[in-house]
Amino acid sequence: MTQRTQIRSGGRAARRAARAAPLASHLRPIRPGMPGGAYTPLTPLQMDQIHATALDALEQIGLADAPASGIAYLTGAGAILGDDGRIRFPRALIEDTIARANRSVTLMARDPQHDLQLSGHRVHYGTAGAAVHLVEADGRNYRECGVQDLHDAARIADTLDNIHFLQRPMVCRDITDNLEMDYNSIYACCAGTTKHIGVSFTEPGFVKHGIEMLHMIAGGEDKWRERPFVSNSNCFVVPPMKFATESCEVMEECIKAGIPVLLLSAGMAGATAPSTVAGAIVQAVSECLAGLVYVNAVKPGHPAVFGTWPFGLDLRTGAMTGGSGEQALLTAGCAQMHKYYDLPGGAAAGITDSKLPDMQAGWEQMCSNVMAGLSGLNMVYEAAGMHASLLGFCHESLILGNDLIGQAMRCIRGIEVTPDTLSLEQIREVCIGGPGHYLGTEQTLGRMEQDHVYPTFGDRTSPKEWVERGKPDLIEKATVRKEEILAQRSAARFDPHLDAQIRARFRIYLPT
Amino acid sequence: MTQRTQIRSGGRAARRAARAAPLASHLRPIRPGMPGGAYTPLTPLQMDQIHATALDALEQIGLADAPASGIAYLTGAGAILGDDGRIRFPRALIEDTIARANRSVTLMARDPQHDLQLSGHRVHYGTAGAAVHLVEADGRNYRECGVQDLHDAARIADTLDNIHFLQRPMVCRDITDNLEMDYNSIYACCAGTTKHIGVSFTEPGFVKHGIEMLHMIAGGEDKWRERPFVSNSNCFVVPPMKFATESCEVMEECIKAGIPVLLLSAGMAGATAPSTVAGAIVQAVSECLAGLVYVNAVKPGHPAVFGTWPFGLDLRTGAMTGGSGEQALLTAGCAQMHKYYDLPGGAAAGITDSKLPDMQAGWEQMCSNVMAGLSGLNMVYEAAGMHASLLGFCHESLILGNDLIGQAMRCIRGIEVTPDTLSLEQIREVCIGGPGHYLGTEQTLGRMEQDHVYPTFGDRTSPKEWVERGKPDLIEKATVRKEEILAQRSAARFDPHLDAQIRARFRIYLPT
Repeated sequence: MTQRTQIRSGGRAARRAARAAPLASHLRPIRPGMPGGAYTPLTPLQMDQIHATALDALEQIGLADAPASGIAYLTGAGAILGDDGRIRFPRALIEDTIARANRSVTLMARDPQHDLQLSGHRVHYGTAGAAVHLVEADGRNYRECGVQDLHDAARIADTLDNIHFLQRPMVCRDITDNLEMDYNSIYACCAGTTKHIGVSFTEPGFVKHGIEMLHMIAGGEDKWRERPFVSNSNCFVVPPMKFATESCEVMEECIKAGIPVLLLSAGMAGATAPSTVAGAIVQAVSECLAGLVYVNAVKPGHPAVFGTWPFGLDLRTGAMTGGSGEQALLTAGCAQMHKYYDLPGGAAAGITDSKLPDMQAGWEQMCSNVMAGLSGLNMVYEAAGMHASLLGFCHESLILGNDLIGQAMRCIRGIEVTPDTLSLEQIREVCIGGPGHYLGTEQTLGRMEQDHVYPTFGDRTSPKEWVERGKPDLIEKATVRKEEILAQRSAARFDPHLDAQIRARFRIYLPT
Repeated sequence: MTQRTQIRSGGRAARRAARAAPLASHLRPIRPGMPGGAYTPLTPLQMDQIHATALDALEQIGLADAPASGIAYLTGAGAILGDDGRIRFPRALIEDTIARANRSVTLMARDPQHDLQLSGHRVHYGTAGAAVHLVEADGRNYRECGVQDLHDAARIADTLDNIHFLQRPMVCRDITDNLEMDYNSIYACCAGTTKHIGVSFTEPGFVKHGIEMLHMIAGGEDKWRERPFVSNSNCFVVPPMKFATESCEVMEECIKAGIPVLLLSAGMAGATAPSTVAGAIVQAVSECLAGLVYVNAVKPGHPAVFGTWPFGLDLRTGAMTGGSGEQALLTAGCAQMHKYYDLPGGAAAGITDSKLPDMQAGWEQMCSNVMAGLSGLNMVYEAAGMHASLLGFCHESLILGNDLIGQAMRCIRGIEVTPDTLSLEQIREVCIGGPGHYLGTEQTLGRMEQDHVYPTFGDRTSPKEWVERGKPDLIEKATVRKEEILAQRSAARFDPHLDAQIRARFRIYLPT
């Protein structure tokens, strides 16, 4: 630009430059942790009924199959072991546990700017799952997924503003030894992103190996315990109403090692949970309340996410389905129960049953993601990339999910009503002696970046422009972006000295 | 089936036959007119503020450009014509009008089973718009649309359970004479579906021709006035705060002819309306309140839909965008204001900016459609088929929209909480001495059809099945279905005698 041009268009150029610069984070139109809560599928009375039924279920039915250690913890806290081996929970024990439990949990990240403050209706979106396939979007193909795919997912997630955490979405199918799989999963995630990470240990004995790696990454046990940046997803129950014996032992090890836990109850409505939305929520709430007693019996106040995580089922075929309206209601109803108890909670949304990132994937992922957010779910797990009812993970879909979730977050942010936004004076100025339109007014330009979310890949061109640009394909654009991200060196990668130490101690499958 | 097999599996076969039969309409999991309202983006105080600001705007700013007849009606009702030509509305006039206006409107259909009862939070989905392109999904191509495309859209909509009405979504670009275009649009719609139809007359003088055709279709003026099955969409304002002179005259003619009217205020937030969501709602509410005074001044109690219909704008380019989160909030906020006034209302949702029925189209269409429904919008216009920010209409997308809206409607239906659905006894029976799962229990099977919505085109197969079935493509499946529908003779088509009468009187472009 010549100096002359600069002088002539100084004001506009300055405004354009100001607009091109990234907004300060407190001015961005959407941010992690914005509060939902405007959508309330359950009335207060209905929540009372669900709670009362859960208390009845815990007192009268209880849970079977606790490990010996769990029986000791739970009976020590006041639960009752029956002759039938089931542990039953007096309602006073449940009520006391809820009263004393954490009202907030911080899930930390290696980079503190990515810390997640779970409380109230604050909403965060991220990945999760145990997909066994990678979806190759460009080739419309499913293949077994491996550790490189997991690492790539972490690297992609690291670059996406609206993916707030990375819970391991895929299983490393190329590592047959379960211990090696567990610690390689940790490595693949941590080397790919500085956001909060969720993992899931297979056996109790594996925790000490994983925690050794985490101490190395953190720079020592004290540093780790000060800022634990990895949580463990514990499928601590096998619904209906049975503890998962080994997973409970894993959970005890995690608690001792200072790893925040996700108390995950993943019933399938119609198979391992009642087929009704209300019944599935009752059972999930019951199981997670039992888990909450368990965690607080092992270590009072240990950070735990209330993970009522019921899934839908296609009753015609008996196959899982995660993309339905029923699924969106299960998740939103659970989110409301978390707030009924004022506990930090999480559930699953954003799943699609579609095999590919097509129109079905779009509508299914948005339905549950926006409803989860509007209901104020603290942790929206499985929010991006998850296809085929959780069996497949797709990198392109993860990238497009960032747009989709950005739009959902704009909806969560809601409608600001202030004298300024109500705009009476602006309407008056425009209509009476004014230009008769709002284009280019200061009020309009001033809010262009702060109020509006613009999609990265979503196409807003006119049909004419679209043709002129060669009818760009959404998936192809995402594939190009994926290749750009993966061609760069990951900013989260460990420094070479640490990496060598880790590789000397562990058998790391990812190439250096 | 042999008799032996029948005897052996009598119970199961009977159950299967019962399941295969269509459910009685009161037992169907989703129905037109289910009540939304669980999502409330505005607090009661915020609605008070919006209302107060609208009253200020109407009293202080008012609306310009009313036709002479409108000035007479409005000043006769108590509005004040200023020296500046603007008509201002004392707040008592607005409050009285709201108090006396219809609390419910029935939009009738040629087949009474498709009548739409607009009141409370009852939600209905349908098409609308003035697209100028037909989107050929299979060829990824945009071309000018014509009367055959409109007729085909009507025929397709007639077969789709979750498309509850057909407001004309496309302009007949192949008919250059506007009068011929108007009555051919009526013909193309009415000959394609017996659901409620929305049209839009171009000039006041055209109404008498259209109404002549409607009298013929109804079987006489008395039959028409008893059950008017067509409403007229009146863009009665040119935002901001100006009456659309000629459209107001069209509206007067429609009212006299007994045609229900949609009071449509279609401001563009940032261009013809304030850029803020709250400001755009204030202006739309103001304009529609002025319209409500107008309608009730012409004929007290004439059926009118409160059509606050603000659109979003991409402020970077100045182009319209209908697929954004801001759009979903505009529509949901308007829906809440309709209920604040307890008036039957409508707004736009389901628009996508994408040119094709791809993943972006899916997420954008679902976002606003589900939020509109959850907020209890009576008439969700533009809900299916609308691409390229309203410039293109796609038959395949309309067909897939039926699945998408079905899922949204399942979400609107919400969570039933009863002693039965809470399932305590079922949990007890399954867990204590029972099978340990809920598969095949009477409670599960009994609710299989009544509680669950199954997609027609949405794919729930496993990756393995999907490969075995040749990786079916969503769009191709919709194209096949489109061709099936259009190969059949339309059930809505007029009987040959009536058709000959119409063709003798009017120049009908569709072939017999």
